[in-house]
Amino acid sequence: VSVSNPLLADDLGARVRTVLDAFLDHQQRTLYAVAPECTDMVHAVRDLLGGGKRLRPAFCYWGARGAGAPGDDELVRAAVGLELFQAAALIHDDVMDDSDLRRGMPAVHRRFAAQHQTRDRLGDCERYGMAGAVLTGDLCLAWSDELFSTSGLAPQALRRGRVMFDRMRTELMAGQFLDMLGQSDPHDLDADEAVERARHVIRYKSAKYTIEHPLMIGGLLAGADEHLLAAYSEFGLDAGEAFQLRDDLLGVFGNPSQTGKPAGDDLREGKRTVLIACARRGATSAEARTISRLLGAPGLDAGGVAELQAVIVRTEAHHEVEQMIVDRTKAAQQALAAARMPETARAVLSDLVTAATTRAQ
Amino acid sequence: VSVSNPLLADDLGARVRTVLDAFLDHQQRTLYAVAPECTDMVHAVRDLLGGGKRLRPAFCYWGARGAGAPGDDELVRAAVGLELFQAAALIHDDVMDDSDLRRGMPAVHRRFAAQHQTRDRLGDCERYGMAGAVLTGDLCLAWSDELFSTSGLAPQALRRGRVMFDRMRTELMAGQFLDMLGQSDPHDLDADEAVERARHVIRYKSAKYTIEHPLMIGGLLAGADEHLLAAYSEFGLDAGEAFQLRDDLLGVFGNPSQTGKPAGDDLREGKRTVLIACARRGATSAEARTISRLLGAPGLDAGGVAELQAVIVRTEAHHEVEQMIVDRTKAAQQALAAARMPETARAVLSDLVTAATTRAQ
Repeated sequence: VSVSNPLLADDLGARVRTVLDAFLDHQQRTLYAVAPECTDMVHAVRDLLGGGKRLRPAFCYWGARGAGAPGDDELVRAAVGLELFQAAALIHDDVMDDSDLRRGMPAVHRRFAAQHQTRDRLGDCERYGMAGAVLTGDLCLAWSDELFSTSGLAPQALRRGRVMFDRMRTELMAGQFLDMLGQSDPHDLDADEAVERARHVIRYKSAKYTIEHPLMIGGLLAGADEHLLAAYSEFGLDAGEAFQLRDDLLGVFGNPSQTGKPAGDDLREGKRTVLIACARRGATSAEARTISRLLGAPGLDAGGVAELQAVIVRTEAHHEVEQMIVDRTKAAQQALAAARMPETARAVLSDLVTAATTRAQ
Repeated sequence: VSVSNPLLADDLGARVRTVLDAFLDHQQRTLYAVAPECTDMVHAVRDLLGGGKRLRPAFCYWGARGAGAPGDDELVRAAVGLELFQAAALIHDDVMDDSDLRRGMPAVHRRFAAQHQTRDRLGDCERYGMAGAVLTGDLCLAWSDELFSTSGLAPQALRRGRVMFDRMRTELMAGQFLDMLGQSDPHDLDADEAVERARHVIRYKSAKYTIEHPLMIGGLLAGADEHLLAAYSEFGLDAGEAFQLRDDLLGVFGNPSQTGKPAGDDLREGKRTVLIACARRGATSAEARTISRLLGAPGLDAGGVAELQAVIVRTEAHHEVEQMIVDRTKAAQQALAAARMPETARAVLSDLVTAATTRAQ
């Protein structure tokens, strides 16, 4: 397995940056013309998009290159639309979960709330922060589609890609809805059913949208045949599930200085992850009561986080999830190896899967 | 002035309904395939879109007809995209303002919060309601663009229309942001400046997006020349401002059984409307203190609403705003009369302006 940075291939990282900068400059001018204060929103987006692993544009771009596309700037522009979609999802997700941090910075609603306070404005700073973040996420959602649709790709290519682009958006919202429903599920579900349910949620809220959909959008933009699309779907789902399982582990055991999120964030939010479902399946009845009592408890402190981590470690749920990551990644790499595509694209896609599933942030 | 229902012309009301029904059926199937529970979101959208005046699709459709378009089903489909955009704006607006009612029904976040309670789910019902409404609004935003882009209109028509479609979205978010900023402005702004600032806000948060942008999108879809587009812009801005000034009056003096919103809702939310700015300009210093004390006060009761209404009536701000509506409507009708367009389109557009500016709901 190669260990290079897959964003260096075709200079993609720099090209994504260039498209983002120019596009946000344009939007900043539009907002400034309405009123200078409105640029607060674009500054928030710029800071958020200063970070990020660019996984979705990269899978889209290399999905198209794998189908024989030349990799010109129009393709990069369409792919960057996915990065703005991700920004919208993160901003709204943080509002819904009331998260404090994202990528090591205050979440967008916290940023606006802080501005409300330092600028001595009237009313409730939390409400102001929430409203600012809802609107900024809405802007990113609209801009995502603007970039995609005005990418300059041919109308028939866009028409093909849009079918999956549209499905991605609807299915992601459905996945997020399921995630939110899960957090309010009773704690006494059957253990095996809970694992299956958690896997179903991550398929929609993350696996499809992080890898499968971007790959297929790229493939469709480039006119991939049905064999390649089927390979992308198989490869993308396996790799996407491994990606999200890694995320689940980082959400409980990750180093905050690397993840940019507080330690044990998922536990505080009461996420019904596969990791938690596995822990519950292996738990004694006393441990199961600990999970029910602490998972999602408002204001869960470091002691509570440690208690939950101990249950996960004792039940070896973390090893179970690591094994799932190994299995899914292997299946993904096999599907990739069997697909017919240019070797450069295959090598970069393989590196992207490694980056997505072995990351510490 | 004709007094007919402008939605009857070209059978537009029924055609909008047909497109909406078929589109939401399609999305319901997609959501059901993820998980049956996800259809909660489409039911909320369906109920919300059961009502509404269809102003934005109507202005878009007749903007295209005015430019000589035949008025086929593809045009209706693109126009209905604007109705879904409006649904997204309303759902998120109600979250941001924490409104109870919309169109006589619980606002979408209240609907989800109530479902959380009746279904005995774990956690905070308000947070659940808010999250459900954020996601449902996001869906409508994505669906708006899906309908527009897959309308079946020719690529070059869509490319022209999209320029204004994209601008509409960014400018509406900017207008909403200004509205929210206004609510947290200090109460001691210069009175004339406050009136100008309130007019600037309604231009972006409502006037442009309700009439000017839909008209111009329709015109651009149909390839209107620059003279007609300039006439649409002038006509649309004047009519749009009159529309929003009517809304301001209804927000303070409207009959809840007709507006579908609680009496005095704008006062409770602390909206810095043109009406309030005019009242403040004519207020004694004791009255000005009453406004500062009560406007946007959390839990403002019927007595407080009546006190603010009395200040508005005493200062005759409501007459001032009625006069502005008359002036702006007249200017709009003159711009419309001077434009070169088919007489049918002119007559319907004139009726639409009457409907938009003399309404009681």
